[in-house]
Amino acid sequence: MKFLEVPKRLLLGRPMRSDRLGETLLKKRIALPIFASDALSSVAYAPQEIFLVLSIAGTTYFHSSIWLALGVAFLMLVVVASYRQNVHAYPSGGGDYEVAMVNIGPTGALTVASALLVDYVLTVAVSVAAGVDNLGSAIHPVGEHKVVVAMVVIVVLTLINLRGVKEAGLTFAVPTYAFAFGVLLLITWGLFKDFVLGDDLKAPTADYQIVTDHRSYAGLALVFLMLRAFASGCAALTGVEAIANGVPAFREPKSKNAATTLAIMGTIAVTMFAGLVALGLRSHIKLSEHPESEILINGLPAGPDYHQDPIIAQVAAAVFGDGSFAFVYLAAVTAMILFFAANTAYNGFPLLASVLAHDRFLPRQLRQRGDRLAYSNGIVLLAVAAAGLVYAFDAEVTRLIQLYIIGVFVSFTLGQIGMVRHWTRLLGTEPDPAVRAKMRRSRVVNSIGLSATGTVLVIVLVTKFTHGAYLVLIAMPILFAIMKGIRKHYDRLVVELTPPKDAGLTLPSRIHGVVLISRLHTPALRALAFARASRFDTLTAVTVQISPEATAHLTREWATRDIPVPLTVLDSPYRDVTGPVVDYVRSIRRSSPRDVVCVFIPEYVVGRWWEQLLHNQTALRLKARLLFQPGVMVTSVPWQLGSAESLEARRAGASGSGEEPPSPHGVLD
Amino acid sequence: MKFLEVPKRLLLGRPMRSDRLGETLLKKRIALPIFASDALSSVAYAPQEIFLVLSIAGTTYFHSSIWLALGVAFLMLVVVASYRQNVHAYPSGGGDYEVAMVNIGPTGALTVASALLVDYVLTVAVSVAAGVDNLGSAIHPVGEHKVVVAMVVIVVLTLINLRGVKEAGLTFAVPTYAFAFGVLLLITWGLFKDFVLGDDLKAPTADYQIVTDHRSYAGLALVFLMLRAFASGCAALTGVEAIANGVPAFREPKSKNAATTLAIMGTIAVTMFAGLVALGLRSHIKLSEHPESEILINGLPAGPDYHQDPIIAQVAAAVFGDGSFAFVYLAAVTAMILFFAANTAYNGFPLLASVLAHDRFLPRQLRQRGDRLAYSNGIVLLAVAAAGLVYAFDAEVTRLIQLYIIGVFVSFTLGQIGMVRHWTRLLGTEPDPAVRAKMRRSRVVNSIGLSATGTVLVIVLVTKFTHGAYLVLIAMPILFAIMKGIRKHYDRLVVELTPPKDAGLTLPSRIHGVVLISRLHTPALRALAFARASRFDTLTAVTVQISPEATAHLTREWATRDIPVPLTVLDSPYRDVTGPVVDYVRSIRRSSPRDVVCVFIPEYVVGRWWEQLLHNQTALRLKARLLFQPGVMVTSVPWQLGSAESLEARRAGASGSGEEPPSPHGVLD
Repeated sequence: MKFLEVPKRLLLGRPMRSDRLGETLLKKRIALPIFASDALSSVAYAPQEIFLVLSIAGTTYFHSSIWLALGVAFLMLVVVASYRQNVHAYPSGGGDYEVAMVNIGPTGALTVASALLVDYVLTVAVSVAAGVDNLGSAIHPVGEHKVVVAMVVIVVLTLINLRGVKEAGLTFAVPTYAFAFGVLLLITWGLFKDFVLGDDLKAPTADYQIVTDHRSYAGLALVFLMLRAFASGCAALTGVEAIANGVPAFREPKSKNAATTLAIMGTIAVTMFAGLVALGLRSHIKLSEHPESEILINGLPAGPDYHQDPIIAQVAAAVFGDGSFAFVYLAAVTAMILFFAANTAYNGFPLLASVLAHDRFLPRQLRQRGDRLAYSNGIVLLAVAAAGLVYAFDAEVTRLIQLYIIGVFVSFTLGQIGMVRHWTRLLGTEPDPAVRAKMRRSRVVNSIGLSATGTVLVIVLVTKFTHGAYLVLIAMPILFAIMKGIRKHYDRLVVELTPPKDAGLTLPSRIHGVVLISRLHTPALRALAFARASRFDTLTAVTVQISPEATAHLTREWATRDIPVPLTVLDSPYRDVTGPVVDYVRSIRRSSPRDVVCVFIPEYVVGRWWEQLLHNQTALRLKARLLFQPGVMVTSVPWQLGSAESLEARRAGASGSGEEPPSPHGVLD
Repeated sequence: MKFLEVPKRLLLGRPMRSDRLGETLLKKRIALPIFASDALSSVAYAPQEIFLVLSIAGTTYFHSSIWLALGVAFLMLVVVASYRQNVHAYPSGGGDYEVAMVNIGPTGALTVASALLVDYVLTVAVSVAAGVDNLGSAIHPVGEHKVVVAMVVIVVLTLINLRGVKEAGLTFAVPTYAFAFGVLLLITWGLFKDFVLGDDLKAPTADYQIVTDHRSYAGLALVFLMLRAFASGCAALTGVEAIANGVPAFREPKSKNAATTLAIMGTIAVTMFAGLVALGLRSHIKLSEHPESEILINGLPAGPDYHQDPIIAQVAAAVFGDGSFAFVYLAAVTAMILFFAANTAYNGFPLLASVLAHDRFLPRQLRQRGDRLAYSNGIVLLAVAAAGLVYAFDAEVTRLIQLYIIGVFVSFTLGQIGMVRHWTRLLGTEPDPAVRAKMRRSRVVNSIGLSATGTVLVIVLVTKFTHGAYLVLIAMPILFAIMKGIRKHYDRLVVELTPPKDAGLTLPSRIHGVVLISRLHTPALRALAFARASRFDTLTAVTVQISPEATAHLTREWATRDIPVPLTVLDSPYRDVTGPVVDYVRSIRRSSPRDVVCVFIPEYVVGRWWEQLLHNQTALRLKARLLFQPGVMVTSVPWQLGSAESLEARRAGASGSGEEPPSPHGVLD
């Protein structure tokens, strides 16, 4: 639409030429914030999930949190090590999807793809919701309108990404570094205060009590709870695969740069995760899944107005003091990095969708870059899905997080299976012993990765299933089936559309011209003239009789103007134009099946969108129906009204890029 | 859409032939309930509006209600008498609109039309809301979900009317008579009990007190309040014009039958209105605009949970006893007639819209009857507007009624001005003294009608302006301007589309064929063959280069298949197909402006709606853009895929009436 062009350009920038694609490749120090913000930001919510689950059994079990944290940290290092192998072996950006495709086959690859697509959407939803929560700890009105704020954030992210990936990187670099700096400072200063200065850290919630369900947790129940806490903490691992999937966006040498970035990211993430759990434990924070009833303040339930601050805010209050500059700084940068973490998915999802579209598993509209060289359709699709989730779950992090990380671990596990097979296959043909030794080492790394991620996947599935994870287990197979169906459609299309090897042009025997007439206005005269000039084998004008008076008037005028084309009148008792015309065309084809019918439709074209509303859409309906008749060509003979001409003149004067026309079609009457 | 066809037929019935139109004409005893249900039903809310306004000054002024009721009744008789003149003079169903058009001119007529269109919408909104209120007095859950129930009622009414007017009449006859019978019985038995048996009638609210604002009403303020109460009571007059506008739906002799129906309706309505006010007064009912705070029960405010029953329910409780069979019967038939009153607008609005569309003031889609011979588009338009109002005003009768009746009185007044002019004009040419005397009598009747309705219009405007009437005074001019604009568009169209008197067919000098090629698939080969068979003066194939590899592949295959048409490659740095093609076509036209270009677009057609989503809409965009180029014909050469063929086969086997195709267009790639 013309009137959308100016705001579109203001928001998104001018269209970019295809040969500028190289300019959007990323340096390591820009790629780190873009692709690692997801993994780093998850330390803003993953540690507290451990406490939230442990709180079910009571604060006495909080001390286990540090062991669980170390478990998560160890898992993180294993996964990072595994993925450094992937990055070198498969640098094309297909990530686990490509690894599974090559080494397991299409079904494995499509499973990975379904899992990752779901998880990208959840990354946006969880990160934005958590970001709004953190922002709410400093600015209380934000906490009260979580859903609205989250929607606004999603819209802003979408616009930024539609502008293109390079500007996004520059915009996002500063806050990611600011966050890492802030959290590391918090941990260092906090541990220094605690262990060196001997200060007693005290979170704002340190004096509260937590109500437990008075079951004594022991044996299997306790093990299950611990595993659930561990599974929740594993949210910290989301985002590791983003770098592996983003290799093509790195500068050369792509694989090496990506592997280095991965290692840096892993180290920072592990440090922050373990540090925050330790400080949370030392400052006696109290967190609960249902704080309004299960947190007691001076022996009374906290009530529905209680706002449970996230772990970073509480630890920051303990270390720097509530409301201090450092506290506000941390709330701000935490919110920022979480929003930018959502941005990781804005890079990953459209890239994966494009790969899938290229393999004909998704609509081909997702394959192409938009006029700013970003994958616009994929970006919009992701935004809509994420906004839907945020709305459906009221932007509640704890509820959203139950659906999260299943996809990641499905993808991790299948990817590692693929990598082990990859090395085994290569080892079968590689003669050089030095290379073979390196391959064996890689296979050991990936095997460890496989057993670790496989185990965690089982733990996550078992402990989270009833808490919402089943929704993902429904969504994934549906996505899988849809992608299978799409592939089937495109495959059938190739068969149907490919001509025989030796096929040339087989001309039809004859062409019958049919001109559709409603009234003898200028467009009709013009269509008749063009049809005559086409010199087809036969030529007839056809009119559908809705009222006998109108038909009589038409035949009179036909005679007066001395039109040298015979006029056929078709009857229509149900006041329908399409049916009789289709029947007529079909009858011509029936009597001579090897001929072709060319139907001329006189149309006039209006220039303003509202003018379109003032006319019947008969021409459109008729054309749509005729397209289904074999051996029929449909020729629109447009007549431009004054408003259409001035629109086209304005359009021709404009920048030249493809603007949308205001009216999608001409009108018959 | 195919999948909508079966539910459509189940809900709306089979399509009807045009020549069955005569069968839908109405007998008097069927026309009365259809066209008079609006006027009769308004006694269900108009009397209580008088009490509501008087309550502002306190119950001491309730005794004035009977005088105000007599005023309204007198006005009703004057208006009925006036409209009996209209029905005879203008039997074509144009009503006040036609009268104003003939005797005042287009501006007057359009003012009437704007007023009536707004009021029809309000008729639906007010009647449905009041119906739900009455239903709520017997079934309490209905009162608690007023908006939802009102929406459901509007949907049901819409479906009934889309089935066609005759079945609607039969369905509606019984409840209208049941209502008239019930209310007349209530009044007769109530007055008998009160005056003959000497029983003391006592409404459920008889013992409550009403809080006044402690101002003593006197002088101008009292007069103003009385006038406002009178103006509110005038809601009883809505619907009188429905019969005048519905004359064409009557059986012959149309005018006489319509005039008789009008007289019967007027008598019944006046009796019921006055009777209900009298019984309300005698049974000491208490009604207030803000019952939650202004009604006192045992000295305490009624509070937000208080449900103020409408007047008929209260009087019925006083006469027959609360919860008695007669009470429930009256609540049910009152609700029913109010819903059916909304139906009056479903008859009037589409008829008026059709007349306006015929005069080119509204889109021509409103002019034609749907396949069930009802004006489907007008019915749907009315339903959407009314549902919007009900939603916006929370289905509150008292708030909606503030907007009501302005339109009716604007229309009444202009109609009467027109009628007075009508008689004056006829008197200027009529020689027969007997006829002249009759005309003079008619003119006196209409003059009385004019002064009465004009006075009431002023009263309504002045007393209701700040209570919401201003909204109508904004909406009416907007509607007026829109209709003027539409007329201007159609008028310009006539000028632009009418060929010169002696214009015949002027053939173009030459036709240049251009075939658009993306890949050499079957549809492309077919389009090339058809284009060759058309034997135009020149023929070129054109492809837009998005990627050099694809173009190289195409040119290789072109050579292999030995296609006897030259291939032109257009460059497109911004990955846009439309722009380069339009530029190319324009360049041909520039070098030879008297020639015509025929662009062949190979398309393939899929049969399932979701398959459409899997393809770019390039063909559609391109066609839309080419339609704006002068001297260009656009020829679609469709290729039906398997799914499209089977769809068309199913469709050809179906009933023959025009079903919608599932996909509105073919796809280029």
